[in-house]
Amino acid sequence: MVCATQIYEKPVLNSPILIEGLPGIGFVANIAALHLIQGLKAKMFGEIRSSSFQDFAMSKGNGKARFPISELYYYKGRGEERDLIILYGNTQALTAPGQYELCGRVLKIAEELGCHQIITLGGLKHRKRVEIPGLYCAASDPDSLREALSLGAKVVHGHIFGVAGLLLGLGKLRGMRGFCLLAETPGLYPDATAAREVLRAVCKMLRLRVDLSRLDVAAEATRNILKSFGLETRPIEEKKAREESRSRWLI
Amino acid sequence: MVCATQIYEKPVLNSPILIEGLPGIGFVANIAALHLIQGLKAKMFGEIRSSSFQDFAMSKGNGKARFPISELYYYKGRGEERDLIILYGNTQALTAPGQYELCGRVLKIAEELGCHQIITLGGLKHRKRVEIPGLYCAASDPDSLREALSLGAKVVHGHIFGVAGLLLGLGKLRGMRGFCLLAETPGLYPDATAAREVLRAVCKMLRLRVDLSRLDVAAEATRNILKSFGLETRPIEEKKAREESRSRWLI
Amino acid sequence: MVCATQIYEKPVLNSPILIEGLPGIGFVANIAALHLIQGLKAKMFGEIRSSSFQDFAMSKGNGKARFPISELYYYKGRGEERDLIILYGNTQALTAPGQYELCGRVLKIAEELGCHQIITLGGLKHRKRVEIPGLYCAASDPDSLREALSLGAKVVHGHIFGVAGLLLGLGKLRGMRGFCLLAETPGLYPDATAAREVLRAVCKMLRLRVDLSRLDVAAEATRNILKSFGLETRPIEEKKAREESRSRWLI
Amino acid sequence: MVCATQIYEKPVLNSPILIEGLPGIGFVANIAALHLIQGLKAKMFGEIRSSSFQDFAMSKGNGKARFPISELYYYKGRGEERDLIILYGNTQALTAPGQYELCGRVLKIAEELGCHQIITLGGLKHRKRVEIPGLYCAASDPDSLREALSLGAKVVHGHIFGVAGLLLGLGKLRGMRGFCLLAETPGLYPDATAAREVLRAVCKMLRLRVDLSRLDVAAEATRNILKSFGLETRPIEEKKAREESRSRWLI
Repeated sequence: MVCATQIYEKPVLNSPILIEGLPGIGFVANIAALHLIQGLKAKMFGEIRSSSFQDFAMSKGNGKARFPISELYYYKGRGEERDLIILYGNTQALTAPGQYELCGRVLKIAEELGCHQIITLGGLKHRKRVEIPGLYCAASDPDSLREALSLGAKVVHGHIFGVAGLLLGLGKLRGMRGFCLLAETPGLYPDATAAREVLRAVCKMLRLRVDLSRLDVAAEATRNILKSFGLETRPIEEKKAREESRSRWLI
Repeated sequence: MVCATQIYEKPVLNSPILIEGLPGIGFVANIAALHLIQGLKAKMFGEIRSSSFQDFAMSKGNGKARFPISELYYYKGRGEERDLIILYGNTQALTAPGQYELCGRVLKIAEELGCHQIITLGGLKHRKRVEIPGLYCAASDPDSLREALSLGAKVVHGHIFGVAGLLLGLGKLRGMRGFCLLAETPGLYPDATAAREVLRAVCKMLRLRVDLSRLDVAAEATRNILKSFGLETRPIEEKKAREESRSRWLI
Repeated sequence: MVCATQIYEKPVLNSPILIEGLPGIGFVANIAALHLIQGLKAKMFGEIRSSSFQDFAMSKGNGKARFPISELYYYKGRGEERDLIILYGNTQALTAPGQYELCGRVLKIAEELGCHQIITLGGLKHRKRVEIPGLYCAASDPDSLREALSLGAKVVHGHIFGVAGLLLGLGKLRGMRGFCLLAETPGLYPDATAAREVLRAVCKMLRLRVDLSRLDVAAEATRNILKSFGLETRPIEEKKAREESRSRWLI
Repeated sequence: MVCATQIYEKPVLNSPILIEGLPGIGFVANIAALHLIQGLKAKMFGEIRSSSFQDFAMSKGNGKARFPISELYYYKGRGEERDLIILYGNTQALTAPGQYELCGRVLKIAEELGCHQIITLGGLKHRKRVEIPGLYCAASDPDSLREALSLGAKVVHGHIFGVAGLLLGLGKLRGMRGFCLLAETPGLYPDATAAREVLRAVCKMLRLRVDLSRLDVAAEATRNILKSFGLETRPIEEKKAREESRSRWLI
């Protein structure tokens, strides 16, 4: 499990907040991060490739090959806006050790840029479609929990799978506090509505000025990226992942 | 497979005994260790996180995120009580190499603290519920076997899966003697009755003064931890684990 | 995941092109590479064995044991022919991290020999058998895409699995440009017809003088190698591989 | 995948031959090696434990815990007998990379003791039980092939799975020549008859004076070891292993 990291620029940031936006349930985090990057014109400053990513390339209609990758963006806040580091990408690692390695790399880079706080995003599987998806949260410390609750989120009961959960736990080891923010989603397609609720809360907290009226554009872009990967957008693997996470507990 | 170890304190101990109490069949070891920690007011002095643990966080009703972890406690015996190192946690590693790595770390730390003896605990699957669960043992050396038998345990026939078996084998390589002590259990729930039998024998042998009347409290706490991990308490994986252990034997 | 590399000779080459020819769909790349090696009398200069290859030996009718291996050949072009490095072998790695490691080794060696350009070959699964298989391409940069399109290839939509895709992506990180060239194939047997179309285009581009009239010989040899590995030639695993590549995306 | 090696003695040997006897089809190699060790009073000089072995302990009726292990024995030939290194154990590694690592360790030790030649043993699955099982061979070089054929073996067609095949291939990289010798076996139980045919040939070639009349004793001992591991002796995994070995070939 080796990660190849490429840092193109070392931005000078003021206590930036790390925002996680990798693909997951309903692609809520992925859409939100893409919209932030586009809306804030955040700049890519680093790339991570892991040997625990998929071993393939993808080709779209334009013949340009794409590869599994994680990208790091930064944004220097204007006025009272907070500085940001945004983790974006088209995959998570294929194995649990790969996820630990990936998160370790991301946190190391974030730490070097002065980051002390993490917000991870995601979807919370919900059977019924709702008008306004509810927000749920969990935090690695009391202060962060208070912050998340003050954004109108309720406490989540259950797992936070993948990078969204792991970044909080491994960040805590480095003295970074944080919370995850999940929006209800049927999880059957890239869910712009759930992403909007998550972003609305994050932007309010970090005083970010981002237009949230056209999140459908980022959702459509996410859907196209998925298509170019040959992926349907149904979370068929979720159940399997949960099953796997139980194995070896009761040996 | 990387382990991150954090040692908060290096206690000075007198030939301490390592007691293993990770989750397993009937959560017998897990309950027993938790009860020991609480009853003796043992102090946590180290934590281990492994990249072969699960890649998720768990959230309970209070919104505090929890993460897969192994914890090390110590107890300085009073009077004729033996000093202890207690291995506690909410998971075992997901893969066999991860288990080897985890056990290697634990043993290295224990060795540095002067440990020469290991007692691993566990449940032995038993179809019927019994009034007083019988004790079973296996040992890595004749002296330890005698000690275990003198506690009223019979010899176990079969596998001792996971950390309970592995610690004995890898400990032997470091010149540590030891035995495992298993109590009969239906294994369908955190089994306070089985944990009591195991603890009764261990406390007698190590002259520990621990009140065993309220083991149901530790069992209930264990059940709640499991729930917060989204885990049912049925050992559905046991059969699968046994199947896996056979693969590649007859290639 | 360890690779053992043996370099028997360090050839002096003039900006050689790396041509990938490992087993894959329809064994198109494998046949094409073998034919190139035989037709050009390319010389083997290195071998790679990976611990992520299979752990077995194969025996054919002559009792000579064969082992999973990757081989590197070179060819010094005559006249206006381009110099070549040809990657040939009888397997790809069994795991994604193994594939990353294998490609990393190959690229490192190619880089040291002055390689800046990669052409990976393969088959594109096609339900019906066609008279003249169509060519498809994807590229990691615009120049390479233009080159590939000028050879009569259309743009591929979808995945390029395995080493054929991975070499492009990891090569790009080393500043190597490149494209993959896939020929339509039913994929049910070593497909000499598809290999001919791929080779015709590659030879034209690189001005290689290779007789393409007897590609059935290389196809037959490939079929025999497969047989000696006890392998049928049906791509039964393709669907499984695609399934696996999706897992953990939607956790 | 880490191996822990313990060498208790460095014997001075005269061009010893490495004989492999790990568990496999029909436990032919395992029985043969145990019989050699007992018949020749070979001495254990080293042990190898791998993190790719199973993570459990086994307990038999006597309460003595046993662990997955590989053992190395040596035998100094008397008169015209050849010196031997015998690889014995109760498991092979669980994963292909683990097998590579294990074989690498064994070969390194053998090489340091002056070994240039390898004989691996095994069973060849055969539907019908036969009076006198036929011998089959494959070799990594022409001289070894001639030797094996001169023992009355026919050429094997197909795979030699696991350590028996891998030792030949990785040994070749170290300039060690060798062959494998397989006896026909139904493979449904520890097969003393097949082990006898293999041993008869090996003893003849190496001029070893070993009584082969009571191989049933070693077979019975092997059966008991298997039982103590909770293992049935049916090769249910063989088919699965073969399936696995194909995966990723045709991606």
